[in-house]
Amino acid sequence: MKLDLELTATTIGELANELRSVLGADAITTSDGLREQHGGGESYHPIAPPDIVVFPSSAEAVVRVVDLCRAYGAPMVPHGAGTSLEGHLAALHGGVSIDMTRMNRILSVNTGDLDVTVEAGVTRKQLEDRLAPDGLFFPVDPGADATIGGMVSTSATGTTTVRYGGMRENVLSLTVVTPAGEVVRTASRARKSAAGYDLTRLFIGSEGTLGIVTDVTLRVFGIPDAIAAAVSAFPTMDAAVDCAMQVVQLGIPVARMELMDEVQMAASNELSNLSYAEKPTIFFEFHGSAAGVREQADEVGEIAAELGSDDFVWSTDQEERSSLWEARHTAYYAALALRPGSKGFATDACVPISQLAGSIRAVRADIDECGLTATILGHVGDGNYHVVFLIDPDEPSELALAKAVNDRMLRDALEREGTSTGEHGIGYGKIGFLELEHGAAAVGMMRAVKDALDPTGIMNPGKVLP
Amino acid sequence: MKLDLELTATTIGELANELRSVLGADAITTSDGLREQHGGGESYHPIAPPDIVVFPSSAEAVVRVVDLCRAYGAPMVPHGAGTSLEGHLAALHGGVSIDMTRMNRILSVNTGDLDVTVEAGVTRKQLEDRLAPDGLFFPVDPGADATIGGMVSTSATGTTTVRYGGMRENVLSLTVVTPAGEVVRTASRARKSAAGYDLTRLFIGSEGTLGIVTDVTLRVFGIPDAIAAAVSAFPTMDAAVDCAMQVVQLGIPVARMELMDEVQMAASNELSNLSYAEKPTIFFEFHGSAAGVREQADEVGEIAAELGSDDFVWSTDQEERSSLWEARHTAYYAALALRPGSKGFATDACVPISQLAGSIRAVRADIDECGLTATILGHVGDGNYHVVFLIDPDEPSELALAKAVNDRMLRDALEREGTSTGEHGIGYGKIGFLELEHGAAAVGMMRAVKDALDPTGIMNPGKVLP
Repeated sequence: MKLDLELTATTIGELANELRSVLGADAITTSDGLREQHGGGESYHPIAPPDIVVFPSSAEAVVRVVDLCRAYGAPMVPHGAGTSLEGHLAALHGGVSIDMTRMNRILSVNTGDLDVTVEAGVTRKQLEDRLAPDGLFFPVDPGADATIGGMVSTSATGTTTVRYGGMRENVLSLTVVTPAGEVVRTASRARKSAAGYDLTRLFIGSEGTLGIVTDVTLRVFGIPDAIAAAVSAFPTMDAAVDCAMQVVQLGIPVARMELMDEVQMAASNELSNLSYAEKPTIFFEFHGSAAGVREQADEVGEIAAELGSDDFVWSTDQEERSSLWEARHTAYYAALALRPGSKGFATDACVPISQLAGSIRAVRADIDECGLTATILGHVGDGNYHVVFLIDPDEPSELALAKAVNDRMLRDALEREGTSTGEHGIGYGKIGFLELEHGAAAVGMMRAVKDALDPTGIMNPGKVLP
Repeated sequence: MKLDLELTATTIGELANELRSVLGADAITTSDGLREQHGGGESYHPIAPPDIVVFPSSAEAVVRVVDLCRAYGAPMVPHGAGTSLEGHLAALHGGVSIDMTRMNRILSVNTGDLDVTVEAGVTRKQLEDRLAPDGLFFPVDPGADATIGGMVSTSATGTTTVRYGGMRENVLSLTVVTPAGEVVRTASRARKSAAGYDLTRLFIGSEGTLGIVTDVTLRVFGIPDAIAAAVSAFPTMDAAVDCAMQVVQLGIPVARMELMDEVQMAASNELSNLSYAEKPTIFFEFHGSAAGVREQADEVGEIAAELGSDDFVWSTDQEERSSLWEARHTAYYAALALRPGSKGFATDACVPISQLAGSIRAVRADIDECGLTATILGHVGDGNYHVVFLIDPDEPSELALAKAVNDRMLRDALEREGTSTGEHGIGYGKIGFLELEHGAAAVGMMRAVKDALDPTGIMNPGKVLP
C-alpha cells in the first residue's frame, strides 16, 4: 500500500517534536535556509526543500529517525555532501532530509587486509588524509569531495576507474537501515563471497530508494612506488579517442586517462593561468614500479606520437603532477568561469569505447549548431564522457535547448549500446530514460524489488523509478 | 501464493507431451539415465533426479519451456556443465531440468571493445579456444570446464581472481528469462552504468533461483606479452600464507597465486609423476611485459626466500608452465587418487587474508584429529581455500565426521569475518549457513527479493534460501 506522501503542517510539527526529543535539539532543523540547502545538489534541477532536516550521529539514531518517519508516513531523503547532479536530493514530496555528514568516523583501518570501514558521512578527501600516512589510498575519485555513502548510492566511478574499478568493485560490505528500521550488514570482510544474493551491489547505485547506508567497508590499495603523469594534445578529437582506445586494447595499465576537449582546455588555461595547447588533450597517470611507469609512459608516448601528438612528456615530479591534476579537478569551475554568471548543467553518458569518437563528434556538432556553450571531458578509458553546458539563468530558451541536446545525446548513446548515465545516476533528471534504456520488463523487475523492500514507497520517492 | 511443487505422474506425462510438441522430440527426455545424470553435480550430495530433462536451443525455446512449466506448476532447475559442488542441480521437488548446453554459440567478439557475447551453454574452454587466435582471453578460471551460464549463477571466481576479478567484475550484461516468461536484458555493453538497480549482479550468484540466464556479455583481455610461472615450497603453512599476504600487501600484480598443502603436493606428485617437495607450496603466474614479469618474479622470489623457501625458480617457458599448471588443474583428481574408491567432498571458505593462516591451521588440526584424509588448496591471494575430503562411501561415519569438520570450519570462517563460501555457492549444501552468516534481517531481504521476482517459488526451489 502506497502512502499519501505529502504531510500536513500539523503532522510536520508533531514529527519534528518527536525527532527533536529523540535526537536532541542540535540534530534537527526546520529553518528555511537549511531546508533550501538540502533540497538541491550541484545540478540545474529546481530545488525542492524537505520539511525537516535531521543530523543523526549513529546508526541507532538513523533507526529511530526511520521508525518515526514510517510512523508518520514521512518520505526520507538521505543526504551526503550534496554534490548530486541529477536531482537525487530534491524532496519532491517533502518529508525529512537525513543529513549523514555527522556520521564521519573512520571505524577501522586494516592495513593487513587492505580494507577500511567508515561511516557513511566520511568524505573522500577525509579518507585520503587518514590513509596516506599508512601508505594506502582509496582509488575511487569522482572529482567532487563526496561522502562515501553518497558514492555508494550513485555507484560512483571516476578518474581511476579504468585501472581500479568503481564503487561496485571496491565496496566489500555495507551496513544499511531498511525502511522497516532493521539493520542489515550486506556481507563480510572477505574479498569475495558466493553466499546468497548480492545485497551489497543491490544497494550500490540505488540512490537512497531502498534504505539508508550507515557504514561502508572498502578495499584500499598501497600507494604505488612510482607515480608519473603526462599530458598529450592531439590534432583532432578522433585522434585523442583513438589513442585512448589503443591504450585500452593493448592492456597498458594506465591509472588515469582523462580527456578534455579544446573548449575545456581553453577554460582551464584561463582559470588556472596555464598555457596548454587548446586542443583535445589527454591527461595520463601511471602507477607502478619506477621501471614500470617508465615502460607504460614510453608505450603511451609512442602511440600518441603516431596519432599526431607532438608534445607528449611525462614526469614523476610531484609538483608538476599536482598542477596538472589541478587543471582536471577544477575543470567544472573553469567551465563555469567561461561564461560568468552562468549556471552549469552537467550530464554524462557511457558507450563502448569503439563508439566514443562518433558519440562525442555528434554531440559537439549538436552543441555548436544550437549555438550553446559547453565543454566536453571524460573518463575516456571507460567510454564515459561528460558535457557541461553553461546556461544563462535569465534565458529559459537556453536551458530548453541544452535539455534537447542532452536528450539527443543520451538517445544516441543508447543506440550505440551504451548507457544514459555512466556515473551521475538517474535521480529524477534522467528518469525518463530508464525504460528507454532497459525496457519495460527490466524496469518492472526493478519496480518489483523496490516494492518488496520499500512497500510503502517512503524512501526517496520519485527517484530512479518512474 | 506458493505452488504445491511435486507433480503427479499424469501431470508429468501431459507436460512432457506439450514440451515435446513445442521443442521437438530430440530436445526432451524422461529416460532414467539422463534424469539421474541431471540430478546431481560433482558433489557428495545425494542425487535428486528431475522428472523431465529438456535441451532448448534458443532463448525463445526457453521462454516456451518457462511458460509451460509455469502453467503446470512444474519446478525448473537450470543446468550447465554439471560441475556444481553444493547440490544446486538436485531436483529436490522434481520438475524440469533445463539443460543449456545446446545453447553454445559465441554470438559476437568485439575486439575493439574487448567484450564478447556468448550463449549461456558456452564452456570456459570453448571460449578460450575461440578467443586465443584473436590474442584475447577471458580470465575467470574456476578449474572445472563449466558453462558461462553456470559460472554466472554461482558467481564463479578462481585462480586469476586475485588479478582480474571474478564473474561479478567481468560480466557486463545478461539476458535472462524471468519466471513470468519475460526476456530481460540487464544492462548495455557500456563498461559501467549508474542507470537503475544492478540487475546484472542480482542474477550473478542467484543460482537459478530468480530466472534463467540465456546469454552473457563478458569483458575479455589481451593475452599479455609475457607470462611467467614459478613454484615455491615453504617450510610451513604459515610461511606460505605469509608470503601470499606480503605479495598482496605490496600490490605485486600476480595473475595467479595458488596454494597447495603438503598432502595435496604428495597426491599431485603421485598422480602426475612429478617430484615437487611435499611441503606447502605456492604456484605463481605473472602477466605483463617481459621486463614487468621479471620484476614481479624477482620481487616475489625475494619474499619467498626470506620466508625460508629455497627453491623459487621462475620461467617463461610455455611447456614448463603447462606441466606446472597441469598439477594445479588436476588437483581434485589427484586427491581422489590418494584413496582409490573414495568419493570427494569439496568445500570452501574465504576469510580476510590476515586470518587465513589461522583458519587453515585450525581445519588441518581438526582433519587430523578426526583421522580423516583431506587436502587443502586455495586461491590464497583472495583468502579463499578449499578442503577436499576423501570419503569411503561404504563408511557412513566418515561422511558424518567430514560434515562436522566442515561445519566447524565454516563457523570459524564466520568468526574471522569471512564467508561460508567464497565461490562454490550455497545450493542446498550450505543453506544452513546463510542466516548464520548474514543474520535474519538480511536473509529476510533476500527472501523478499525472491518472492517479488519468483512469487510462486518455481525457480530451483530449495536452493539458496531456507
